[in-house]
Formats: sequence, C-alpha cells, structure tokens
Amino acid sequence: MLSNIRVVLINTFHPGNIGSAARAMKNMGIRSLYLVDPQDFPNEQALTMAAGAKDIVEQAIITSTLSEAIADCSFVIGTSARDRTHSLPQMNARECGERIITESQSHPVALVFGRETMGLHNDELQQCNAHTYITAHPDYPVLNLAAAVQTICYEIYMAHQLHAEQPYTLGNSPKEKAYPNTQQMEYFYQHLETTLRNIGFLIKQHPGNTMLKLKRLFNRARPERQELSILRGVLSAIDKLSAQIKKDN
Amino acid sequence: MLSNIRVVLINTFHPGNIGSAARAMKNMGIRSLYLVDPQDFPNEQALTMAAGAKDIVEQAIITSTLSEAIADCSFVIGTSARDRTHSLPQMNARECGERIITESQSHPVALVFGRETMGLHNDELQQCNAHTYITAHPDYPVLNLAAAVQTICYEIYMAHQLHAEQPYTLGNSPKEKAYPNTQQMEYFYQHLETTLRNIGFLIKQHPGNTMLKLKRLFNRARPERQELSILRGVLSAIDKLSAQIKKDN
Repeated sequence: MLSNIRVVLINTFHPGNIGSAARAMKNMGIRSLYLVDPQDFPNEQALTMAAGAKDIVEQAIITSTLSEAIADCSFVIGTSARDRTHSLPQMNARECGERIITESQSHPVALVFGRETMGLHNDELQQCNAHTYITAHPDYPVLNLAAAVQTICYEIYMAHQLHAEQPYTLGNSPKEKAYPNTQQMEYFYQHLETTLRNIGFLIKQHPGNTMLKLKRLFNRARPERQELSILRGVLSAIDKLSAQIKKDN
Repeated sequence: MLSNIRVVLINTFHPGNIGSAARAMKNMGIRSLYLVDPQDFPNEQALTMAAGAKDIVEQAIITSTLSEAIADCSFVIGTSARDRTHSLPQMNARECGERIITESQSHPVALVFGRETMGLHNDELQQCNAHTYITAHPDYPVLNLAAAVQTICYEIYMAHQLHAEQPYTLGNSPKEKAYPNTQQMEYFYQHLETTLRNIGFLIKQHPGNTMLKLKRLFNRARPERQELSILRGVLSAIDKLSAQIKKDN
C-alpha cells in the first residue's frame, strides 16, 4: 500500500525543505517524491537535510506541472489551511491518513503540498479530489513545510500499522470501486469542452470560467470509471447529433 | 492544561533545531521551552527557523542540568527509540499525548528530548517516569529532532482537542492523585542514600550502582505524595535507630 503513495511538492523555495521532507517520508515508509518546478534543485542542502534519506532525494521525479505529477493517480489530496473557502471535501490529517491507506490499496494516490509562503493556488486545489488540514493552535497554525509532511506521513503510517494489525477480511472489506486516473479525467474534460463548444454552449473566447466550475463539480463528485464511461457516452451521443446537424446544414 | 506542559531539549547541537522545535511547539499551543546546556545558543539561526515562534525562543529557560529543568514537574516523560532496553513503562506518541493531557490537568509535566546524535543518556532516562517513542518505519526510524518534537506536540494537541470536545464530568473524571515533584523525589533519594550509608548498607566508595537501581525502581513505581511521606517516615525511623546505636556505643 505504501508504495502506491507519492508526495508531490510544488515550487519549493528552500532546498533544505526538500531534504527534510524526504527524511520525514522515509521515516514513515513512503518513498516516492515528485517535485513540481522546484526553485533550486538539485542542491547540496537538500542532501544534507535528507540525512539517511538521500536515496529519496536522488530518485525524486521532477515535472514542470502538477498535472504531469499526478497523471496516473486516482485519488489526489491537497494540503491547505483549514479555513480556506472552497468546495472540496475537507478532512483532518488523521482522517486523511486513514483515507489514503484505504485508497492506496487499489490505485496510486498523491498527497500534494504547496509553496512555503503561499500554499496551493486555486487551480492546483481544483485538480484535487479532497483537501486536508493539520489540526493546530489558532494563535499560530502555520507549520513549516517539512513539519507538515512529517505530520501527515506519520498519520498515514499510523493508519497503515493499524490496518496491518486489523486487516480487512472478506466480511468487512471496503467496497472496491474503480476510479479513473487524473489523465483519464483530463481526456474527459477535453471531450466535454469540445462538445460544449460544438453545440455553442461555450463561446470560444471565454470557456474558462464555465469549464472551471464544471471541473470543480466533477472533481468533487469523483466519478467512478463506469460512471465516467457513461458520461463519455453521453458526450459521444451529443457529438453525433451535432455532426449530423452540421452535415444537414 | 497546555500551559502546564514544557518541552526540555538536552544539549542540542544545531541551533536551527531549537528554532524549528519552538515553531512546532507554538503550532500546537505549547509555549514553555527549557534548554539544558545547549551547544550554541543564543544563535541567529534559532530565531530564523522559529519564524513566528521567536517569542518562545527568546523566553526559553536555560539550565545546566536536567534535574534543574524538571525540578517542579510531577510527571516526566523521555523520548527514545522504541527498542531501547530499559525498565521504564513505554508508550507510543499517541498514548503519550493522551497521558500528558491527563497529567497536565493537575501538575507541571515535562517532555524531554535528547541530543541529535545520541538521544538521552541512561542517567537522564532514569530521571523520567516513563518513555515514549514515535511509531516509524524500521528501515529508517530516526526522526530529525524538530520533526520528533512536531509529532509528539501534535499528538498532545490532538488529545487536547479531543478532551475539549469531551470534557470530564464529575462522573467520569480520572481519580486525582497527588504526586511529588522531581525536587521532592531528589530529597527522598538523598535521604535514602544517607540512611543506607548510616546503617552500613551502602559502602561510601561505591554507592553508585545500588542507588541507581533503587532510583530506577522508585521512578518506575512513581510513589504518590502520601506514599512518599510514608517512605520518608520509614527512613526517619531508621535514622533514629542508628542515632540511638551510635549514642549507645
């Protein structure tokens, strides 16, 4: 299960934080690190702070966008402050640990951390299925990036250990659902946008806002694979219709 | 309750770790920091890493020994790796969080962290009533000092929040026990050693090993105040006896 879990750090400013995050991950049995457009990497400071987790830093996968880093993941959870107003389902770090262990039984899962100063941008949060926050004192709830990675990875490992002690038997196994990965969702969104443009619902110059709202809706709903193929079927039916109309005119 | 909790860092080598630990503490509502013989403090790096928790670093109390730092505490818990063989009661970080919240309702409590490289020495562990470890992956279970402070303080704050949601009522309040503080235990040990020497049980040149074993036993047993005054009473009775014998000879 733990091998299905990756940590994604976006735009990290201090290379030392990358190293500390890698150490925190390895302490908790998580080994897959993705760096989206890091500001200063590779850097000696990352290796120093990693201590016994240099291998994780050295094997980190660098991408230029978040989409690339999560393309094959079927569950993506973003970290942010508790109060942030957006429409994603919220859970605390403990619930997040349990959820990630459950999800990682059947597919790759990503845990996404934003910049040291600004966290995740809205367009990045919108690529997530849920978000998680660390319970903290209201006087100063802002954790250091590596400390946040440590805390959530610790909750994941605690959930993993609990799970190992009480494995699912046939009787109490969670209902297995197959979810599309982020890449498949992206194809769906492209299809949706094309179709909606073809039927004149989206105006070519301003598709942004409406598409954003639709994406937010579907990410929150998190369609299963079967449901997604139904949606794709609907789009194909519409496509046929508009092709027919085009031909007839 | 949180104001009754202090973090004690022994002999910290990197001043940055002191700052990171202070930030981790403040994130979780814990403000009292004791530094036992820090290697390089004050230091600008500690303030930099503390970020919004500079006040905690600036107000830190520096002592030269652990005994001074915990003198007024009635419950002292040391952190160490899980496997360490010694006779103290063990608990994981989650249990530690719950225990500390319960204890801190009635008296000051100390959470003691050792050196970056070597942890706590045996004589320091023997001054603790219990020890705690952080559940971690066996491949690399050694957390960075500040990450360890973060994880345990997080568990304390989680227990505190849970407690705030489900406060004790008269019906389910834990049995209140009054415990002596470390200073009072120290007086007892001095008394014990003097008495045992007077009656010739301890040889003046080699009291170390036997006293060590006795201290370990009593710290583990953790006598209540009332029990301690009974023990002191026993010692006084023995003292009278040996004074009488001395006079008679």
